[in-house]
Amino acid sequence: VTDAPHLAMGGGAEFDLIRRLLDTWGPRASGIGDDAAVLGVPPGEQLVASTDASVENVHFKRGWMTPREIGARAATAALSDLAAMGARPLGLLLALGLPESWQAEAEAIADGVGATASALWCPIVGGNVTRSSELTLTVTVLGGATRPLSRAGARVGDNVFVTGHLGGPGAALADLLNNREPEPSALSRFIAPTARIAEGRWLAGQGATALIDISDGLLADAGHLANASAVSLSIDVDAVPCLRGVLPADVLSSGEEYELLVIVPADVGLDPIAFERAFGIPLTHVGVVVERQAESVIAATTGVALSGHDHLAR
Amino acid sequence: VTDAPHLAMGGGAEFDLIRRLLDTWGPRASGIGDDAAVLGVPPGEQLVASTDASVENVHFKRGWMTPREIGARAATAALSDLAAMGARPLGLLLALGLPESWQAEAEAIADGVGATASALWCPIVGGNVTRSSELTLTVTVLGGATRPLSRAGARVGDNVFVTGHLGGPGAALADLLNNREPEPSALSRFIAPTARIAEGRWLAGQGATALIDISDGLLADAGHLANASAVSLSIDVDAVPCLRGVLPADVLSSGEEYELLVIVPADVGLDPIAFERAFGIPLTHVGVVVERQAESVIAATTGVALSGHDHLAR
Repeated sequence: VTDAPHLAMGGGAEFDLIRRLLDTWGPRASGIGDDAAVLGVPPGEQLVASTDASVENVHFKRGWMTPREIGARAATAALSDLAAMGARPLGLLLALGLPESWQAEAEAIADGVGATASALWCPIVGGNVTRSSELTLTVTVLGGATRPLSRAGARVGDNVFVTGHLGGPGAALADLLNNREPEPSALSRFIAPTARIAEGRWLAGQGATALIDISDGLLADAGHLANASAVSLSIDVDAVPCLRGVLPADVLSSGEEYELLVIVPADVGLDPIAFERAFGIPLTHVGVVVERQAESVIAATTGVALSGHDHLAR
Repeated sequence: VTDAPHLAMGGGAEFDLIRRLLDTWGPRASGIGDDAAVLGVPPGEQLVASTDASVENVHFKRGWMTPREIGARAATAALSDLAAMGARPLGLLLALGLPESWQAEAEAIADGVGATASALWCPIVGGNVTRSSELTLTVTVLGGATRPLSRAGARVGDNVFVTGHLGGPGAALADLLNNREPEPSALSRFIAPTARIAEGRWLAGQGATALIDISDGLLADAGHLANASAVSLSIDVDAVPCLRGVLPADVLSSGEEYELLVIVPADVGLDPIAFERAFGIPLTHVGVVVERQAESVIAATTGVALSGHDHLAR
């Protein structure tokens, strides 16, 4: 029912605000106004669902980014969880906690959510608006996948890849917290990240067996995946592709990247050149899956870049 | 995958808290720990989804109810939206915004969410935990229905019914806000409401064509349904079943009831006796659907109770 019109609504301040949001979204929202959204999940696909909250003064500060960027980023953070399952978006629900002091920015925030949603072909199908003391965007995403990729699919001998260049968000956040001016390229990666939806689906189609999005930092998320798979990951830290100007050591803990850590069996001939041609970002071999050890992630330094990419080129 | 074990997780305060919640939930939660939950939607059913936020000092105050009741009530408010679609629950996701001052109550809150979820056969399939300055529970519910019941299905000549007895939450809330002691029966309806899931499915199966849950008050929600259906509802206010001790006039605006307003075509022989026998609450005829007029809801006072029930009996 993604082309359904919205139901007619009555009066009241809450409905007026909802109508302002719907006007902002235009055709990017559909079927809103009933007790719940109704969606079809295509036959043969499983439903993939995740919820993610972006809270003022926890995930961002007011002066760091525009209201539109706050909305776009909150939607990206949620949709990234679909990317990490190799799923395609079916719909998004926004629960907005709106303080009085943010009332005038409601449309701009909604427009940012809508920009991310439409860029990733995800209709906005529902939501909730309430007063709150701090701006809170809780975004729930629904997706479909014939074979959702868990964190638990890594096996000993598999290869480990990462998408894109890491380090920007961590570097920008450190500068912002210390009242320094961040590098524009790093700041842009922090305030306007991208959910790798198409990339995740391509990787699933090529034979990847496990994915995780890098929200807590490469080493932390490699650890989550290793724990879920009951293996350890040996990561060649020199091979990790860094955003220009970011120190490799800082790259490993940079969170909110929303790039993907990818596990691929050794017999799958993944083509990083084709990936980069399709998506404009590198796909870099950064390690291998090994037997479970005391440490879930082993940082290896071979000095040899395994992927053939120039990791500092950008 | 509702019987899947949780994925193994690593260290850190956030994971420790999540593990405490999972320990509290036990078998009521399943498959948590991946980037997203994976669920099957049965063939022939559509996905029904809704998100609902319960915020401290907006929807409740700390002293009004126990942490367990806060959790149970937030889950009920969300699941009520599935009831209002005639859907059955497939899964629930909890996004918890937890202030430092509520840390010690996290398990009790989670236990309340789990109590409601398990009572309604709804597995907890995912969630999110973040710091916040006020306690916030954003609950997303996923359900399935072969024929979801919209608010837009009312036609001229249909009959209007309501489940249960109304007025308790409104009366209790008025007393709480004025520092008076609420009547125990009214207070119980406010702090421990029930989502009418089984009732909604029974009504859908019997031929109801539109449903809405009474969260804003009977007259307001009748207006929402009338607007969505482009009709007006004529409500016999004397027929509305009141909780004992509540004035009929106050019953019409009592919100957060989570009872259902039900639209049934005139040729459907709905049996209120069978309903009451099955669910232990009355199903009362309170009006008819009429041509669209200036007012979406017309409060008629006939003095004749149409259902044959003694509306003040409880």
